[in-house]
Amino acid sequence: MAAMWQCQGVSRTVAPAGAVRQGSLRELNLALVLDRIAAAARPPSRADLAARTGLTRATVSAVVEDLIAGRLVSEADPTPRNGAGRPARGLVLAGDGPAGLGLEANVDYLAACVVDLAGRVRHHTVLRADLRPLAPADALARLVGLAAAARADAADQGLTLAGAALAVPGLVDDAGLVRLAPNLGWRDVDVPALLAGHPPLTERVDGVPALVVDNEANLAALGELHAGVAGPASFLHISGEVGIGAGIMLDGTLFRGARGWSGEIGHIPVQPDGRPCRCGGRGCLEQYAGQEAVLLAAGLAGADLPADTAAARLTELAEAGDRATLDALAEAGTALGVTVAGVVNLLDLDTVVLGGGYAPLAPWLRPPVLAEVSRRVLTAAWSPVTVRPAVLGSEAAVVGAAGSVVRRILARPAGWLAHRR
Amino acid sequence: MAAMWQCQGVSRTVAPAGAVRQGSLRELNLALVLDRIAAAARPPSRADLAARTGLTRATVSAVVEDLIAGRLVSEADPTPRNGAGRPARGLVLAGDGPAGLGLEANVDYLAACVVDLAGRVRHHTVLRADLRPLAPADALARLVGLAAAARADAADQGLTLAGAALAVPGLVDDAGLVRLAPNLGWRDVDVPALLAGHPPLTERVDGVPALVVDNEANLAALGELHAGVAGPASFLHISGEVGIGAGIMLDGTLFRGARGWSGEIGHIPVQPDGRPCRCGGRGCLEQYAGQEAVLLAAGLAGADLPADTAAARLTELAEAGDRATLDALAEAGTALGVTVAGVVNLLDLDTVVLGGGYAPLAPWLRPPVLAEVSRRVLTAAWSPVTVRPAVLGSEAAVVGAAGSVVRRILARPAGWLAHRR
Repeated sequence: MAAMWQCQGVSRTVAPAGAVRQGSLRELNLALVLDRIAAAARPPSRADLAARTGLTRATVSAVVEDLIAGRLVSEADPTPRNGAGRPARGLVLAGDGPAGLGLEANVDYLAACVVDLAGRVRHHTVLRADLRPLAPADALARLVGLAAAARADAADQGLTLAGAALAVPGLVDDAGLVRLAPNLGWRDVDVPALLAGHPPLTERVDGVPALVVDNEANLAALGELHAGVAGPASFLHISGEVGIGAGIMLDGTLFRGARGWSGEIGHIPVQPDGRPCRCGGRGCLEQYAGQEAVLLAAGLAGADLPADTAAARLTELAEAGDRATLDALAEAGTALGVTVAGVVNLLDLDTVVLGGGYAPLAPWLRPPVLAEVSRRVLTAAWSPVTVRPAVLGSEAAVVGAAGSVVRRILARPAGWLAHRR
Repeated sequence: MAAMWQCQGVSRTVAPAGAVRQGSLRELNLALVLDRIAAAARPPSRADLAARTGLTRATVSAVVEDLIAGRLVSEADPTPRNGAGRPARGLVLAGDGPAGLGLEANVDYLAACVVDLAGRVRHHTVLRADLRPLAPADALARLVGLAAAARADAADQGLTLAGAALAVPGLVDDAGLVRLAPNLGWRDVDVPALLAGHPPLTERVDGVPALVVDNEANLAALGELHAGVAGPASFLHISGEVGIGAGIMLDGTLFRGARGWSGEIGHIPVQPDGRPCRCGGRGCLEQYAGQEAVLLAAGLAGADLPADTAAARLTELAEAGDRATLDALAEAGTALGVTVAGVVNLLDLDTVVLGGGYAPLAPWLRPPVLAEVSRRVLTAAWSPVTVRPAVLGSEAAVVGAAGSVVRRILARPAGWLAHRR
């Protein structure tokens, strides 16, 4: 890659090309330098960047000036050096430039979150609210309030929101239409149309709608991917909430399926003639390992706890050795393990991440999941499967949503620079 | 692509580079011209190829001479043209050049097949044999006999075998070690070591072992991909035999999983506490929709029929309206449908191909599969799933195996040309 950019950088100097070519060269160089700054273990100098990109030092300096002017990059305090010479100033991703707004409308809460270019969470609010009795327009109106508060807080911190992504526990098409979210009771909800009166969420930024709507489990898997855990970039991330969704990560890329509807692990049958499910089917995993099923089995039915409160309550009871809770978690873990074993037999993934409400419950869910995997996966004897809790729990989707906006800027900084002119 | 090759072709003429560069240019041009000949709807002339590749006519002529000399391409009879001028001679893939040998060791049969460059099956033999009582070495010895007969027949037809691929209903590692084939009773069977006394199957050709061992369901899915059906290149291909395997085709590429063990759909649990399975698990799909389960339910247990005979017998009985057979197929189709619904919920594939012994039984299996899909797949109402019989049935794996050798030659013709010197 570097060699190619270098070649193009040289031709730019020697033989200036037309406007289009200039523009695209500039875009490539901006993205390349920004990528090297983002990837560096410690703040690189301009000279380091020249060496790492293959661009000339003059080109690097010009590109860095553009990135600094656009508030994408800032200069770190110089670190003292041993040896002769003035210490070089290192470059870091700006902590006061563009940021991403993440939003989530889930069954029993709304959330908003702001993530800066460096991936730091700068704002995070969760509003408990059972959305099921609400009309979608009313639920979204409350979300707009949360978004406005996040925007104001971001501004106070010197950040500019460059776009937003909304996580919904359902099937979303490319235009932001929620085709079906069984646990919310939403069907064909046109989110962009319902948000039309809120320009910060509906205008287009750099050719992309200011708000992208996506599946909650997909965004949670992306959040986990970028949460900084060393390890394989291929994994199954399971978000255990009222509904159960999965994100299938293959070599760092989310597998979305033929039409974008992949990951509905909660509706894999575990008992074909079993309990009826809201989806119209029977015996779906959700009916055995979803939050409501676990609460019911633990004797907490009707408590109507939000996902992380439910997980915290179950954790508390399990830690206290409450028999009903331990049995409920064992039963849920077994159902989850049966399904995970089937998925591993089919896809041969070597890492399963227990996310969402499952993350804090992993000490109790992991053993039965591993037992089913070892009993049912053909290759388990010589190809072990790692089952681990997610680094992010219930906040993975909203953090992943905000992070997806940030990564779009990092991948195409020229768009951001053009937009803010 | 074409522009890049053209650019390289020009630089070759203008400024001859070193030996390595020459070699790789020649390889690229050989592969490019051969690809265009293979893809053409009707035999292209040298002038057509120059237009389609962007190479000069002189380069095309030189490349075509190499391909003809290497028996990869031959000249078709000239087709009469309307209008002035001598009819141009079209070029076709040679029918008397290198060919691929496909082999299969399945539970109750051995098979061998030869496929020429154009994808035509030139030899196909199936030997009924229950391999379960045999030691792996004895089973492979019989396969060597089949391979020798295929080789002799190919030679009689002017073909040269350029390599072989062996399909096994089990988990195979990169070195050809069969880690586990539950229905054969094989565990850690080192196929290349057992074939060491048979040089045509063990020497290396062009850096690749003369014999590649692969999973039967994977090769069957590849066979189906290249069987010439128009349609999406993303599908789930299910091979229904004694065991049930799947090949997951995503955009024309086989999805092999993290370590190459994907596709074990037969061991997805359909009744977690159900019938014990040879794999050590319980309630695996194989125990409800595998050949033995269907025969047992249809009252044909102990008949011990090979896969295609079993399918033919079941077809005959179903067509005659035999109640037990119809019930057995409905039950198998339902179990298959429950599993397929789970897979579609997880992966959002829009096409499911019923292959192997399922192909002729599709008229009876398809309705219950579709019923379960429509009942259980969240997106079924607006994103229909196509369920169709495979074009190739039980022969898909052995044909796909032979075809995989042919496609290796087409992708890298220089290797073949170097080898035959």
